[in-house]
Amino acid sequence: MRIDGRKENQLRPVTFTRNFTSHAMGSVLTEMGNTKVICTAFVEEKVPSFLKGSGKGWITAEYAMLPSATHTRKVRESTRGKVEGRTQEIQRLIGRALRSVVDLSQLGERTIWIDCDVIQADGGTRTASITGAFVALMEALIKLRDARQIKEIPVTHYLAAVSVGIVEGVPLLDLCYEEDSGASVDMNMVMTEHEQVVEIQGSGEEATFSLEEMNTMIALAREGITALIEAQKETVNEIYREKLIASQGGGKA
Amino acid sequence: MRIDGRKENQLRPVTFTRNFTSHAMGSVLTEMGNTKVICTAFVEEKVPSFLKGSGKGWITAEYAMLPSATHTRKVRESTRGKVEGRTQEIQRLIGRALRSVVDLSQLGERTIWIDCDVIQADGGTRTASITGAFVALMEALIKLRDARQIKEIPVTHYLAAVSVGIVEGVPLLDLCYEEDSGASVDMNMVMTEHEQVVEIQGSGEEATFSLEEMNTMIALAREGITALIEAQKETVNEIYREKLIASQGGGKA
Amino acid sequence: MRIDGRKENQLRPVTFTRNFTSHAMGSVLTEMGNTKVICTAFVEEKVPSFLKGSGKGWITAEYAMLPSATHTRKVRESTRGKVEGRTQEIQRLIGRALRSVVDLSQLGERTIWIDCDVIQADGGTRTASITGAFVALMEALIKLRDARQIKEIPVTHYLAAVSVGIVEGVPLLDLCYEEDSGASVDMNMVMTEHEQVVEIQGSGEEATFSLEEMNTMIALAREGITALIEAQKETVNEIYREKLIASQGGGKA
Amino acid sequence: MRIDGRKENQLRPVTFTRNFTSHAMGSVLTEMGNTKVICTAFVEEKVPSFLKGSGKGWITAEYAMLPSATHTRKVRESTRGKVEGRTQEIQRLIGRALRSVVDLSQLGERTIWIDCDVIQADGGTRTASITGAFVALMEALIKLRDARQIKEIPVTHYLAAVSVGIVEGVPLLDLCYEEDSGASVDMNMVMTEHEQVVEIQGSGEEATFSLEEMNTMIALAREGITALIEAQKETVNEIYREKLIASQGGGKA
Amino acid sequence: MRIDGRKENQLRPVTFTRNFTSHAMGSVLTEMGNTKVICTAFVEEKVPSFLKGSGKGWITAEYAMLPSATHTRKVRESTRGKVEGRTQEIQRLIGRALRSVVDLSQLGERTIWIDCDVIQADGGTRTASITGAFVALMEALIKLRDARQIKEIPVTHYLAAVSVGIVEGVPLLDLCYEEDSGASVDMNMVMTEHEQVVEIQGSGEEATFSLEEMNTMIALAREGITALIEAQKETVNEIYREKLIASQGGGKA
Amino acid sequence: MRIDGRKENQLRPVTFTRNFTSHAMGSVLTEMGNTKVICTAFVEEKVPSFLKGSGKGWITAEYAMLPSATHTRKVRESTRGKVEGRTQEIQRLIGRALRSVVDLSQLGERTIWIDCDVIQADGGTRTASITGAFVALMEALIKLRDARQIKEIPVTHYLAAVSVGIVEGVPLLDLCYEEDSGASVDMNMVMTEHEQVVEIQGSGEEATFSLEEMNTMIALAREGITALIEAQKETVNEIYREKLIASQGGGKA
Repeated sequence: MRIDGRKENQLRPVTFTRNFTSHAMGSVLTEMGNTKVICTAFVEEKVPSFLKGSGKGWITAEYAMLPSATHTRKVRESTRGKVEGRTQEIQRLIGRALRSVVDLSQLGERTIWIDCDVIQADGGTRTASITGAFVALMEALIKLRDARQIKEIPVTHYLAAVSVGIVEGVPLLDLCYEEDSGASVDMNMVMTEHEQVVEIQGSGEEATFSLEEMNTMIALAREGITALIEAQKETVNEIYREKLIASQGGGKA
Repeated sequence: MRIDGRKENQLRPVTFTRNFTSHAMGSVLTEMGNTKVICTAFVEEKVPSFLKGSGKGWITAEYAMLPSATHTRKVRESTRGKVEGRTQEIQRLIGRALRSVVDLSQLGERTIWIDCDVIQADGGTRTASITGAFVALMEALIKLRDARQIKEIPVTHYLAAVSVGIVEGVPLLDLCYEEDSGASVDMNMVMTEHEQVVEIQGSGEEATFSLEEMNTMIALAREGITALIEAQKETVNEIYREKLIASQGGGKA
Repeated sequence: MRIDGRKENQLRPVTFTRNFTSHAMGSVLTEMGNTKVICTAFVEEKVPSFLKGSGKGWITAEYAMLPSATHTRKVRESTRGKVEGRTQEIQRLIGRALRSVVDLSQLGERTIWIDCDVIQADGGTRTASITGAFVALMEALIKLRDARQIKEIPVTHYLAAVSVGIVEGVPLLDLCYEEDSGASVDMNMVMTEHEQVVEIQGSGEEATFSLEEMNTMIALAREGITALIEAQKETVNEIYREKLIASQGGGKA
Repeated sequence: MRIDGRKENQLRPVTFTRNFTSHAMGSVLTEMGNTKVICTAFVEEKVPSFLKGSGKGWITAEYAMLPSATHTRKVRESTRGKVEGRTQEIQRLIGRALRSVVDLSQLGERTIWIDCDVIQADGGTRTASITGAFVALMEALIKLRDARQIKEIPVTHYLAAVSVGIVEGVPLLDLCYEEDSGASVDMNMVMTEHEQVVEIQGSGEEATFSLEEMNTMIALAREGITALIEAQKETVNEIYREKLIASQGGGKA
Repeated sequence: MRIDGRKENQLRPVTFTRNFTSHAMGSVLTEMGNTKVICTAFVEEKVPSFLKGSGKGWITAEYAMLPSATHTRKVRESTRGKVEGRTQEIQRLIGRALRSVVDLSQLGERTIWIDCDVIQADGGTRTASITGAFVALMEALIKLRDARQIKEIPVTHYLAAVSVGIVEGVPLLDLCYEEDSGASVDMNMVMTEHEQVVEIQGSGEEATFSLEEMNTMIALAREGITALIEAQKETVNEIYREKLIASQGGGKA
Repeated sequence: MRIDGRKENQLRPVTFTRNFTSHAMGSVLTEMGNTKVICTAFVEEKVPSFLKGSGKGWITAEYAMLPSATHTRKVRESTRGKVEGRTQEIQRLIGRALRSVVDLSQLGERTIWIDCDVIQADGGTRTASITGAFVALMEALIKLRDARQIKEIPVTHYLAAVSVGIVEGVPLLDLCYEEDSGASVDMNMVMTEHEQVVEIQGSGEEATFSLEEMNTMIALAREGITALIEAQKETVNEIYREKLIASQGGGKA
């Protein structure tokens, strides 16, 4: 039995709250248990210089935590005057993950800015960010298509991320903060709906793990990702339905 | 008639949502119309060096906006590597305002860190921050007292803040973003429940204003602040009641 | 009786020394009692990007203190690697104040850079900076007009600034450093020759003040500003006379 | 056949040149094909603040590239004024990897600083850094033990790292720069001599991969790491022998 | 004949204005022709960490230019966020020069902070800074001795600095800005009253010079330094006289 | 007799190892005794903005030390976030020295980037950098000419640099670290093959020196530079020969 009563292969409750904030083209408050992340997608009509004239688009991501998101107040990176290594690692990961399932040449010469701002942290903030960012990205792309700026949604597969780890010798899915603190191995997996791997990052801090343990963790991650993608699809389908109703309403008027 | 149908002396709807995030000692999601700010208070058991050994405490504030809080995505200050002048101005203002109604010598040698993080901006973010921060501060102080770390709540008066301005020649209370953009004069007032001024900041950008216009704006601000303090008191009384029930429950057990 | 023998409504001696340094288009050493500020105006034939193509000009200001300007040596901001919040607040104030009395569309697409460098500080450095900067600005504009780069001086009103405050319960005009250190309320006012307000900033540090006290301070500020504008006019008229003589001399040659 | 004639499961030639520079306690020029890294280990008799009084030691790593290490000159991070995200990611990885095979409580309250400075880059610089850093660390630890500052070498296992990837659909071991540029999947593995995983990082840039492909890459990595650890052991045994001869010589004198 | 009518071996007029600003322990406005530098000396009762417990003192210098000091407005180093290489070179030079003629062990464990702030630049700002800083240092040391904090003035020799150069093939003493811009060789010399060299820095920008030319320049510099030290002595003697009168006055009272 | 057995006017062994790293157009590992510097030259087909359209080229230099280059590990400048004053001084010196013997107008509008990275420091790193950088520059220029991008090698003279100093009263050539630490006077000279001075920098730290001592040091430096230029010529001639053979070989094929 886990701290919060879950089974080893059980996710925390996942919710995607749309329209929690309204300025971004895509915006979803993502909750996995007590981890809460505002994930948004802004579209900018230009690309980084290395893509100018290529006809291709770009997706880039930023990640941050509010000072009040953690148990002990976290010093702001703006006050320190620099972005921490951990933050840079995470934002590079989010961007890379999303780009792997988007056909950037269909996006046109525009950049999608993904922002993942953690307002409450309870473990798994980077994976919740990816999972929620995918939904915000979809919302923005659906709006872009409805505005006839792109012909089709250039997403090749659904994609989600989850953490797994080994705590006191037991492989567990979706670690909360307390479990994460005591884990000997920490692994993050990003996979598509077709069980293709996008990213695998596993590491033992002052510990190592066998290939067998790795495979057990991967199996747990697959289960978790399947469930997460189901939840994403529900929310995205809701967006599709609303858009459809809106456009039919518009058609009839 | 104003853009959003309000009268000249009418505030936007104000709400304080408690427990929106849970790690800080005081935490309240403050909404004034579409402006949303997470205001939190953390207590740290030390003081800045200039107060060491003085027996006095300190209150300091930080303010920031999420990139997704504005219509056009705002570049992060952490990415720029420095805190903007406007931000510094606002965080100095919040700290100064709160300190003016707290007897720091009763606080003991501890610092209260106030964080005001704007998650959606629609005008008046600095005044909403002060008004909400006061509530978060009260929550933290009530908890400190209940934990017997301070004897009494060292707050001398309730305090709130509101913006006023002149738009197309008409003085208005509590400007929303669209009004603010077109205002010739912009004024922020911080006052106590006894109509004492804590801070007045009025300025015309490429414009000036008469002392008569200033007095009209001050009168509007007084009305607004009275209403805001009423709303604060409701929320704070709710905190008192909960604590009372909790302590009585504890007593009976 | 005040520390330095002044009456409550009495300014310190004010002088504007022209040509103290010679490279800037406008240059005046401004002294208010022992506060000394070098105020200069440089003209640059371009504007910030948000004004390109608008036909309008811009005025921007920078403010700094020499390390030797204060009683205890002040660490350089260049050494710290960043501009302090207080400095940014002041330079934003100076720029905003000057822009409020200049018709920027008559200035043409050029920027006037105002620099206020405090070489000795004895209270009221920000208000002395504004008062002196106005004179430096006038000198630069007169030269621009004489060089036929602008048709008319695009200044709509004279403008000056002064500090007021409450020290041991007594409202005082133009605080020196020692008075300022002990003040419970500190207010800065920027007004035009026609008693229009450009900027009012009043705040109590760990104190509050009544609207009546505020009005008394405003009345003191009006007196002070009237006297300061008189002094400005004398210096500016001197510049006009010299230019006239120079141009007549040139005409005869 | 690969660009440089290697088989799919073939490493580039590996050499460890000792005493290439002499100030550090451990120092080895590590070459994997044309990738050249100076790996050094300095011992400092203090620990980061979070370990003070714990009796435990620490290992930390820094990584950098000379501007002349790459085909096109690389701008210095010191000139940019900040350490790039990629660099931070790598130095965190190196430190974490080494700490996983060292019993830090046997190290005593001292820090070992690992520096990996790439003087020529041809792919796989981060894995070459880890593999070489392990040898430099061993040299430093042997010297510490000979100086009787630690009782035993606190290393639990040998450890090495290697890159694998998929290039034009073919899984390959130890990618050189040209292969790396064209790879759809890039994976880095750090393993011990007993085939325990310390770190796995695999990612597809604008691509995904199946679990089967992942397993093939892991198998290649295992082969490579076995060969690398053999090479490390040869060099470390050489250090042991020298030390033995030196101490016997010393004993006889 | 030179631009400003001087002979080849002629200095520009030199003046030291005392009490131009009053907060520093030593303060002198130094003018060499149109070059104007405020040189001050502050005494701080502590030393850098490498001298703690040594009984020795330290002298350190900072140098800066006001934005308005140059023909074209100079961007502030605080705004850039970093101190330029040229500035660092100069402040290291000033500190090193002054330390060479002070017996730091007689100074006690205190630091003298020298600030040289150029308010108008017309060539030779670094040498004028050294020459003026020496006078400010002497004033501070005389006051320290009169306050019985040191027994004797710990200065071993008078010291001054001057620039020399080769302009259109002709070696010249004390270059003004216009000469300096056209010089093929630029040399700065710091010497004591006994013609001992403290610092020599000569360089040709896209040019070279013979040892004979170097010797001619050194001879010019010697002449200039002799004259400068004479001027310093006059000012310092004036300080001594005042102090003497003050102390006698005090004795009689 | 000196620490390492050299005579007063004797250089340490000098070697230039070519092709130690291969990406730069010119690349030489320069050793003077135990001082080792990687000197490289990259060619970039653009110039700084102040030279655009001038037809002239530019040479700029950067200098750094590896953390492991010194006895005690040196903190990275990238980690500190800024380039130290000493580093900036040295890189300005290297660039200025090389530019003095190159006809920049013959170089065309291109920049040569010189990098001097010290991998082991034992005194004289800045002079070894200049001496080695000259060879790397020559290699790059020869390749540029062979690629017919410039007509002739635009170098007017060979140039080398050496340190001299006074240790315990004795003038010595080419100080090693231990001598340098104890020197009362430290001088660096850069001269051409025709004994023209390019740069002279002499300074006494808490000491002074006579003109006679200076002349003795200059004489030592001349001897040293003559020997260094001879060594440079050998290496450069080797490059010429190789190129000749290569081009003849190419001609025959």
